[in-house]
Amino acid sequence: MSAYRVAVRVMPRGELLDPQGQAVEHALHALGFAALRSAHVGKHLVLEVDAPTPEAAVDQARAMCERLLANPVTEDFTVAAEGA
Amino acid sequence: MSAYRVAVRVMPRGELLDPQGQAVEHALHALGFAALRSAHVGKHLVLEVDAPTPEAAVDQARAMCERLLANPVTEDFTVAAEGA
Repeated sequence: MSAYRVAVRVMPRGELLDPQGQAVEHALHALGFAALRSAHVGKHLVLEVDAPTPEAAVDQARAMCERLLANPVTEDFTVAAEGA
Repeated sequence: MSAYRVAVRVMPRGELLDPQGQAVEHALHALGFAALRSAHVGKHLVLEVDAPTPEAAVDQARAMCERLLANPVTEDFTVAAEGA
Protein backbone atom coordinates (compact mmCIF):
# COMPACT_ATOMS: atom_id res chain seq x y z
CA MET A 1 0.00 0.00 0.00
CA SER A 2 1.32 3.42 -0.89
CA ALA A 3 -0.28 6.83 -0.88
CA TYR A 4 -1.18 8.13 -4.31
CA ARG A 5 -2.29 11.63 -5.15
CA VAL A 6 -5.34 11.75 -7.35
CA ALA A 7 -6.47 14.95 -9.08
CA VAL A 8 -10.24 15.31 -9.44
CA ARG A 9 -11.91 17.96 -11.55
CA VAL A 10 -15.63 18.56 -11.13
CA MET A 11 -17.22 20.95 -13.64
CA PRO A 12 -20.81 22.06 -14.27
CA ARG A 13 -22.22 20.37 -17.36
CA GLY A 14 -21.81 22.50 -20.47
CA GLU A 15 -25.49 22.65 -21.33
CA LEU A 16 -26.55 23.75 -17.84
CA LEU A 17 -26.49 27.13 -16.13
CA ASP A 18 -23.23 28.01 -14.43
CA PRO A 19 -24.12 30.93 -12.14
CA GLN A 20 -20.65 31.04 -10.57
CA GLY A 21 -19.08 31.20 -14.02
CA GLN A 22 -21.45 34.00 -15.04
CA ALA A 23 -20.63 35.94 -11.89
CA VAL A 24 -16.90 35.63 -12.64
CA GLU A 25 -17.50 36.68 -16.25
CA HIS A 26 -19.44 39.79 -15.22
CA ALA A 27 -16.91 40.73 -12.55
CA LEU A 28 -13.97 40.40 -14.96
CA HIS A 29 -15.77 42.45 -17.62
CA ALA A 30 -16.46 45.12 -14.99
CA LEU A 31 -12.71 45.16 -14.22
CA GLY A 32 -11.97 45.89 -17.89
CA PHE A 33 -11.09 42.40 -19.17
CA ALA A 34 -12.99 42.84 -22.45
CA ALA A 35 -11.13 39.95 -24.11
CA LEU A 36 -12.86 37.40 -21.88
CA ARG A 37 -15.52 35.51 -23.83
CA SER A 38 -16.72 33.09 -21.19
CA ALA A 39 -15.82 31.68 -17.81
CA HIS A 40 -16.75 28.35 -16.26
CA VAL A 41 -16.07 27.53 -12.65
CA GLY A 42 -15.78 24.13 -11.07
CA LYS A 43 -13.86 22.38 -8.31
CA HIS A 44 -10.39 20.96 -8.26
CA LEU A 45 -9.63 18.40 -5.56
CA VAL A 46 -6.40 16.69 -4.66
CA LEU A 47 -7.03 13.43 -2.78
CA GLU A 48 -4.31 11.39 -1.14
CA VAL A 49 -5.45 7.77 -1.17
CA ASP A 50 -3.85 4.60 0.19
CA ALA A 51 -3.99 1.91 -2.47
CA PRO A 52 -1.90 -0.95 -3.86
CA THR A 53 -1.65 0.63 -7.33
CA PRO A 54 -2.34 4.04 -8.91
CA GLU A 55 -5.24 2.46 -10.81
CA ALA A 56 -6.82 1.31 -7.54
CA ALA A 57 -6.40 4.83 -6.12
CA VAL A 58 -8.15 6.27 -9.18
CA ASP A 59 -10.97 3.74 -8.80
CA GLN A 60 -11.40 4.79 -5.15
CA ALA A 61 -11.46 8.46 -6.14
CA ARG A 62 -14.05 7.74 -8.81
CA ALA A 63 -16.23 6.04 -6.19
CA MET A 64 -15.84 9.10 -3.93
CA CYS A 65 -17.01 11.33 -6.80
CA GLU A 66 -20.05 9.16 -7.39
CA ARG A 67 -20.94 9.01 -3.69
CA LEU A 68 -20.22 12.59 -2.64
CA LEU A 69 -18.05 14.91 -4.66
CA ALA A 70 -20.00 15.34 -7.89
CA ASN A 71 -23.70 15.88 -8.48
CA PRO A 72 -24.55 13.36 -11.20
CA VAL A 73 -27.35 15.53 -12.58
CA THR A 74 -25.48 18.81 -12.95
CA GLU A 75 -21.76 18.02 -12.95
CA ASP A 76 -19.17 16.00 -14.82
CA PHE A 77 -15.93 14.82 -13.28
CA THR A 78 -12.54 13.57 -14.40
CA VAL A 79 -10.08 11.65 -12.24
CA ALA A 80 -6.35 11.21 -12.85
CA ALA A 81 -3.43 9.88 -10.82
CA GLU A 82 -0.73 12.45 -10.17
CA GLY A 83 1.96 9.91 -9.19
CA ALA A 84 3.33 9.03 -5.75
CA MET B 1 -7.31 37.30 -32.75
CA SER B 2 -8.59 33.85 -31.85
CA ALA B 3 -10.31 32.49 -28.80
CA TYR B 4 -8.09 30.38 -26.57
CA ARG B 5 -9.19 28.26 -23.66
CA VAL B 6 -7.12 28.74 -20.58
CA ALA B 7 -7.32 26.37 -17.61
CA VAL B 8 -6.81 28.02 -14.23
CA ARG B 9 -6.34 26.12 -11.00
CA VAL B 10 -6.61 27.98 -7.70
CA MET B 11 -5.68 26.01 -4.57
CA PRO B 12 -5.39 26.94 -0.92
CA ARG B 13 -1.74 27.24 0.12
CA GLY B 14 -0.38 24.04 1.60
CA GLU B 15 0.63 25.52 4.93
CA LEU B 16 -2.77 27.17 5.56
CA LEU B 17 -6.03 25.77 6.82
CA ASP B 18 -8.28 24.28 4.17
CA PRO B 19 -11.69 24.00 5.86
CA GLN B 20 -13.42 22.82 2.69
CA GLY B 21 -10.82 20.07 2.28
CA GLN B 22 -11.27 19.03 5.91
CA ALA B 23 -15.04 18.91 5.48
CA VAL B 24 -14.66 16.66 2.43
CA GLU B 25 -12.18 14.46 4.30
CA HIS B 26 -14.54 14.01 7.25
CA ALA B 27 -17.54 13.36 5.02
CA LEU B 28 -15.68 10.72 2.99
CA HIS B 29 -14.42 9.01 6.15
CA ALA B 30 -18.00 8.97 7.45
CA LEU B 31 -19.05 7.29 4.20
CA GLY B 32 -16.50 4.53 4.81
CA PHE B 33 -13.62 5.64 2.59
CA ALA B 34 -10.96 4.74 5.15
CA ALA B 35 -8.18 4.77 2.53
CA LEU B 36 -8.43 8.55 2.14
CA ARG B 37 -5.48 10.24 3.83
CA SER B 38 -6.19 13.86 2.98
CA ALA B 39 -8.30 16.03 0.73
CA HIS B 40 -7.66 19.52 -0.57
CA VAL B 41 -10.27 21.53 -2.39
CA GLY B 42 -9.73 24.44 -4.75
CA LYS B 43 -11.24 25.93 -7.87
CA HIS B 44 -10.88 24.97 -11.49
CA LEU B 45 -11.79 27.63 -14.04
CA VAL B 46 -11.94 27.44 -17.80
CA LEU B 47 -11.63 30.89 -19.38
CA GLU B 48 -12.16 31.58 -23.07
CA VAL B 49 -10.02 34.58 -23.97
CA ASP B 50 -9.59 36.48 -27.25
CA ALA B 51 -5.88 36.97 -27.88
CA PRO B 52 -3.36 36.99 -30.73
CA THR B 53 -1.40 34.03 -29.33
CA PRO B 54 -1.90 31.36 -26.65
CA GLU B 55 0.85 33.03 -24.62
CA ALA B 56 -1.05 36.33 -24.66
CA ALA B 57 -4.20 34.51 -23.53
CA VAL B 58 -2.29 32.95 -20.64
CA ASP B 59 -0.90 36.39 -19.69
CA GLN B 60 -4.45 37.79 -19.64
CA ALA B 61 -5.64 34.90 -17.49
CA ARG B 62 -2.74 35.44 -15.08
CA ALA B 63 -3.74 39.11 -14.76
CA MET B 64 -7.34 38.01 -14.05
CA CYS B 65 -6.08 35.72 -11.28
CA GLU B 66 -4.05 38.53 -9.75
CA ARG B 67 -6.94 41.02 -9.92
CA LEU B 68 -9.86 38.80 -8.94
CA LEU B 69 -9.69 35.04 -9.09
CA ALA B 70 -7.05 34.18 -6.49
CA ASN B 71 -6.45 35.56 -3.03
CA PRO B 72 -2.71 36.29 -2.99
CA VAL B 73 -2.48 35.72 0.77
CA THR B 74 -4.18 32.34 0.98
CA GLU B 75 -4.16 30.80 -2.50
CA ASP B 76 -1.77 29.73 -5.23
CA PHE B 77 -2.74 29.52 -8.88
CA THR B 78 -1.50 27.89 -12.06
CA VAL B 79 -2.50 28.91 -15.57
CA ALA B 80 -2.16 26.84 -18.76
CA ALA B 81 -3.43 27.16 -22.31
CA GLU B 82 -5.68 24.30 -23.39
CA GLY B 83 -5.41 25.03 -27.16
CA ALA B 84 -7.96 26.66 -29.48
